[in-house]
Amino acid sequence: MRERISLESAIEKCCEQQRPCRNIETIPVEHGYKRVIAKDLKAFCDVPPFNSSRMDGYALCRSDLDILKNLSDSDSLSLQVVAHISAGNSAKLRLLPGQTVRIMTGAIVPEETAAIIKQEDITRTGEERICIGRGKYHHSNILFKGSLIKAGQELVSAGELLNYNQVERIASTGIPELPVYIQPAVYIINTGSELTLPGKPLAEGKIYNSNRSLLTAKLQKEHCKILIGQCPIEDNLEDIYREINRGLETADMVIISGGAADGDYDLVPSALKKIKADFIYNGLRMQPGAKSSAAVKDGKLVFSLPGNPGANGILFEALIMPILNKLKGMKNITNNWFEVVLAGNTIKSTNLRRMCRGELLERCGSLVARPIINNEPIKGITSVILDVEPGQGNEDDIVRAMLVR
Amino acid sequence: MRERISLESAIEKCCEQQRPCRNIETIPVEHGYKRVIAKDLKAFCDVPPFNSSRMDGYALCRSDLDILKNLSDSDSLSLQVVAHISAGNSAKLRLLPGQTVRIMTGAIVPEETAAIIKQEDITRTGEERICIGRGKYHHSNILFKGSLIKAGQELVSAGELLNYNQVERIASTGIPELPVYIQPAVYIINTGSELTLPGKPLAEGKIYNSNRSLLTAKLQKEHCKILIGQCPIEDNLEDIYREINRGLETADMVIISGGAADGDYDLVPSALKKIKADFIYNGLRMQPGAKSSAAVKDGKLVFSLPGNPGANGILFEALIMPILNKLKGMKNITNNWFEVVLAGNTIKSTNLRRMCRGELLERCGSLVARPIINNEPIKGITSVILDVEPGQGNEDDIVRAMLVR
Repeated sequence: MRERISLESAIEKCCEQQRPCRNIETIPVEHGYKRVIAKDLKAFCDVPPFNSSRMDGYALCRSDLDILKNLSDSDSLSLQVVAHISAGNSAKLRLLPGQTVRIMTGAIVPEETAAIIKQEDITRTGEERICIGRGKYHHSNILFKGSLIKAGQELVSAGELLNYNQVERIASTGIPELPVYIQPAVYIINTGSELTLPGKPLAEGKIYNSNRSLLTAKLQKEHCKILIGQCPIEDNLEDIYREINRGLETADMVIISGGAADGDYDLVPSALKKIKADFIYNGLRMQPGAKSSAAVKDGKLVFSLPGNPGANGILFEALIMPILNKLKGMKNITNNWFEVVLAGNTIKSTNLRRMCRGELLERCGSLVARPIINNEPIKGITSVILDVEPGQGNEDDIVRAMLVR
Repeated sequence: MRERISLESAIEKCCEQQRPCRNIETIPVEHGYKRVIAKDLKAFCDVPPFNSSRMDGYALCRSDLDILKNLSDSDSLSLQVVAHISAGNSAKLRLLPGQTVRIMTGAIVPEETAAIIKQEDITRTGEERICIGRGKYHHSNILFKGSLIKAGQELVSAGELLNYNQVERIASTGIPELPVYIQPAVYIINTGSELTLPGKPLAEGKIYNSNRSLLTAKLQKEHCKILIGQCPIEDNLEDIYREINRGLETADMVIISGGAADGDYDLVPSALKKIKADFIYNGLRMQPGAKSSAAVKDGKLVFSLPGNPGANGILFEALIMPILNKLKGMKNITNNWFEVVLAGNTIKSTNLRRMCRGELLERCGSLVARPIINNEPIKGITSVILDVEPGQGNEDDIVRAMLVR
């Protein structure tokens, strides 16, 4: 008999057993997207490293700014252009009253500069003279040294999954290479004597194996290495046992679809016992997953999922993802659940928590979630998984949801 | 002078010029995730291909169902077990009244079966006899032939970007390989005499080039081939001209950051003229992008973006993505904008539309968007780009948003 536990308890127990990946490789910073950083990184310089002009224009000395502000409407301030500075130019100048320099976007702002006046807002009055009318000062137009990132500031901390903004920020401080955890390898096993690989003729009583494609796509999305052995596997204890062993030898995690239940031909639990794996949980108090289980052998986790592809997709996201995140070395591993209003009825259950697919939609300026019942294509903003408590599931009920990328 | 146009007009004009990729390659179905399918695919078999048992149990003949329904509370229906059928078994049986077969999940349901009674709901009364009490019939527990997919039904149509559910559905009909459009190659150019590659010493007046990392990450996310030439490029007409030419020769699209404005050292527009590219637009009526442009040469598009990485990120998502989608061969190319309530103030503008980064958050059961001003890390549900009209931008204003994956 199974002592079913909640999804949350199952995740917690599995996470306790899951060792995080600690092997590190070094990659160029521009390949850091979706990788897990293995060390805290601090900026070793200010960004920008100097006061930098935000536009093409003319630098105005501090003392001249007061003069400009106090001009009458008809007056203007005349300045001598003493230099031209372009971006990348190393000259560090100092402005004197009555002087200006023509300065380009990104160039070093001279000392004593109060502001850069836009080139559209000045008048040229001679070869090297300009004048500025009253009211042409609005902003300093200076990007101050360290205003984007300060030297010594933490950029990312070990265990963060890098997005493109973080990759950009790290590069902007001049760090050329990143220490990241290596991507885990996951071994996929699909069992069931009824399974036939796509492309082969379909004999009576057989169906095509689609879980291999589904799990490959899900693991591709998570940037894992994917290992597939003999596929599919017959409902035969020895074959299943051998494949799980091979998975444990070659990969960091094993995911099995099919053979998970209590029937005469559901041999995955028996194979896990034969392999002397310790069961972490055996059955979830929800649908799908009531007959799923997880076991651990020598620190590696084996997930036994049902054969139904819809159930596999939901359990991958809601159950396996946090544990895979821990394996990847991530420090924030939990799914990002939020509450949302249902825009449609789900299949209801009076006594069992249910998860189903859905999509996020806009309805009158609010985001709502429509349950997807019959494998219809997603037409809304994005896919979600909906978490429906017993008794819930009617239009306008508030349920939990998580985004699926 | 620039005649600025709206983002929407710029996208429309660029799309008119963008030729979709029409080169097709064939890949295994399990590698179809995020690829664009090149042909309509129809199912050539029913899924499931036969009436299939949803659980482990016993098949009940049609005429016996009526008897079961009319039993008194104390009575039960006794049946003879005439066969055992497992999943994958090719036997096609026919039930007679008074008979049952033990049937496993996924096995062919015998003809004349009204329902499968769960194995937990029967009592064994002899070697090959069972009995069923009243009230044990709830559902048919049969997954009917073709109930998931009907033979001849359209699975996907040319130009769809495949998600994992579509990949799974295609595999479930036995299609082993997919015709997909080849992934486009995009050439990245970063110009600016102030740019230094990360890892090199930073001379006075120089900054590190982070747009290379940002654009690489964005293009990785979009599964494009990424080509990077000499990087960075000095503000020198000949060098920029040569790099654009190389990009046009080797890639399907060119994206240039830096040198886009009207300053003395902004040489990208001059290089595009020298190359005899035709300008598609020159300046957007919004910030960022007021000084961006796009040009076309021999059917290939060149985007000139500003040097600011924040602006590059926003323009990639809001402007380039739909055109990249067309290049990829996608039929639904538009960004998925929706309306959302602001949970915080943005930098406001009285006369110019502005786009900025934000994140989706849950607030009291509603999804709202918080603007991200100073490059803070994302802590909410997901990243968004916010589209703020002039005068808008205060907390509780409703603005447009799009998800960034």
